[in-house]
Amino acid sequence: MTRTLYERVGKQDEHRPSPFSWRARYALAHKGLAVDDHVPIKFHDKDTIAFSGQGLVPILVDGDRTVHDSWAIAEYLEETYPERPSLFGGSQALARFANGWADTALMPAVFPLVIADLHANIAEDDKAYFRETREKRLGRTIESFPGERPAFEANLAKVLAPLRAQLQAHPYVSGSEPAYADYAVFSVFQFARCASPTPVLSADDALRPWVDRVSALFDGLGASCLRLEASAVA
Amino acid sequence: MTRTLYERVGKQDEHRPSPFSWRARYALAHKGLAVDDHVPIKFHDKDTIAFSGQGLVPILVDGDRTVHDSWAIAEYLEETYPERPSLFGGSQALARFANGWADTALMPAVFPLVIADLHANIAEDDKAYFRETREKRLGRTIESFPGERPAFEANLAKVLAPLRAQLQAHPYVSGSEPAYADYAVFSVFQFARCASPTPVLSADDALRPWVDRVSALFDGLGASCLRLEASAVA
Repeated sequence: MTRTLYERVGKQDEHRPSPFSWRARYALAHKGLAVDDHVPIKFHDKDTIAFSGQGLVPILVDGDRTVHDSWAIAEYLEETYPERPSLFGGSQALARFANGWADTALMPAVFPLVIADLHANIAEDDKAYFRETREKRLGRTIESFPGERPAFEANLAKVLAPLRAQLQAHPYVSGSEPAYADYAVFSVFQFARCASPTPVLSADDALRPWVDRVSALFDGLGASCLRLEASAVA
Repeated sequence: MTRTLYERVGKQDEHRPSPFSWRARYALAHKGLAVDDHVPIKFHDKDTIAFSGQGLVPILVDGDRTVHDSWAIAEYLEETYPERPSLFGGSQALARFANGWADTALMPAVFPLVIADLHANIAEDDKAYFRETREKRLGRTIESFPGERPAFEANLAKVLAPLRAQLQAHPYVSGSEPAYADYAVFSVFQFARCASPTPVLSADDALRPWVDRVSALFDGLGASCLRLEASAVA
């Protein structure tokens, strides 16, 4: 059986600036499932993934099953491979709340801080599509964001409060061991690191040890791509 | 064995404008544990609860054990009464994340909308203490909040996004059945209803059915006090 993951790619192969693709990577690694083929998909490349019936990555093709959407992939893996380590730390619903917080609170707070650098660090032939779709969605130009960085940083500081509280109480969002809630939240920081050379967390931020621990999981799954990303940005 | 709950009281007995006291009430009800005595505690009344070694409610005295802090009470109940329905829906850590979100994201977004009415609806001899402590903490006068209501409403609309996403996917924050994560989040809306006659959610808000379902649990535990609160406000 062949297992293929279609993922967002940035400037070059192995540069993966997508929180959702990172979630799928981590979910597969947590389950101990190897991926035979990672297919890089640019923002504007809809033809390659048209077979899935929609236009977004990640898409997992697991033998004869095609699953899209990072949360649906996590649910699929949990159902299909129940004998492997559970992704949800005891509660799929509560893991989903953390996943939803990452999507609807954390990501909107981080995205304005990195959008301009992200645009600078994707493939040249992807930039027009990225600009058109993102500027339409956000109602403003990419170039309008960096000038408001202090306000976006202040907003992120407020938004991070629940994560800080959780990581003061537990080593991981999921408790004593990492699981999908960690990967979902971490994926936004990982996205930011792959999108911009300017950190969204200061070097001494109390969240850093947790980011580093999740990055180091699965033989440094998060760190491995960062080195490549840094060279792409340099 | 006697079980006593020390709770915040507002304008009159049975008017309970405290999210944390509501969490303790719901946690006890979820465990099916009757409370022999509810002791109402005003904001400034520190003498009555000095026995607990600190100055905040809720405080549970369960036989010879004294436990303060709503989260600590929930943990205590789960440990002490493991044979009764679990409070945490499979993951104590992930329930804590939802609890932390209620404390650090939802409550700060709701509080500015109700603080002036709350002040108007507590006991006369509690108002000076409430004003002094809250104005010091917030760095502004109670009267400065109502004029900015539109901005606070816009902020609340943003903050609610993760809750809306979760309740589109599940009937309860905790999944198919209510548990502590629901009570923690509900407690902030319940606080708002006990603090102000002006709703923080519109009548047709998609969150209302969930609020109403949690309010109706345990023979209408939430609804019973609301009627009293409405008459207190009128």
